[in-house]
Amino acid sequence: MPVEISRPSDRAAILAVARSVGVFSDEEVDTVEELFDGYLEGPEESGYNFLSYREGEAILGFACWGPTALSKGAVDLYWIATAADAQGKGVARALFDAVVEAARAAGRWLMVIWTSSRPEYQAARDFYRRMGCDLKVQLADFYDRGDDLCVFTFPLEALNPKNHPR
Amino acid sequence: MPVEISRPSDRAAILAVARSVGVFSDEEVDTVEELFDGYLEGPEESGYNFLSYREGEAILGFACWGPTALSKGAVDLYWIATAADAQGKGVARALFDAVVEAARAAGRWLMVIWTSSRPEYQAARDFYRRMGCDLKVQLADFYDRGDDLCVFTFPLEALNPKNHPR
Repeated sequence: MPVEISRPSDRAAILAVARSVGVFSDEEVDTVEELFDGYLEGPEESGYNFLSYREGEAILGFACWGPTALSKGAVDLYWIATAADAQGKGVARALFDAVVEAARAAGRWLMVIWTSSRPEYQAARDFYRRMGCDLKVQLADFYDRGDDLCVFTFPLEALNPKNHPR
Repeated sequence: MPVEISRPSDRAAILAVARSVGVFSDEEVDTVEELFDGYLEGPEESGYNFLSYREGEAILGFACWGPTALSKGAVDLYWIATAADAQGKGVARALFDAVVEAARAAGRWLMVIWTSSRPEYQAARDFYRRMGCDLKVQLADFYDRGDDLCVFTFPLEALNPKNHPR
């Protein structure tokens, strides 16, 4: 199984993946860094969990998720990112499935994904739709003028035969 | 103007107001405490701003708001709370108006309110609707089984003649 809990030594590779995607702003990459440091201090305390997609020594992608503040059932999927040179190998799907599995194991029943309406995130939105996520709401000008918030959800309890046939 | 920036010495009174409302769980009151401590360390760094409704020596209510993470235009209205023995005096409305004014002064254009579908929050939801907020989405079982997330928004730019005639 190429996806596993991130190791402290994955830090530089994960930030390199985040930068390689070309979609994240400097502020967003800084946020990945802050969240990874929170994860290293303790996933329980910080609420941030990281998973790495590993192939040999290389990190091809990562996911970050955590329980939603003040919620008993929801988790936030903060990011799934695949290295620019590792697209099309199913890295993101494997990471998505691993987050779903980990969140279910934590007794959670709803996954929530906040993302942007910007054209650069079209591929991400298409990906979440293919995974079976529903776009619940789009809030105009939330991030910036012309940059809306898109909220997707994915039920962790009901089996989705299209994506989770097992 | 009875609403002003909260003073460090308001801490105990604000927590007493939060407890007096009877709606907040212990975890939520703890969160108010954490956010107030973040505010005391620095509103810029923490992103948390508190306003107190003061009458003589007494604090009749408070509001907590702050810029939304990773957003240039949105603010979160975290809480507006009126002391149990000060209901019906327009405390919440004055706090709401003061948050709107402060968020506009900060150059923000959208206020977002996350609240719960629980019956105890019916009065809060009715209040936000009276202030002119729109319920944009209700996410089932977000907080807990049968406890949905309700997301309201309020545009900070367009004048709302019903509530902001001035």
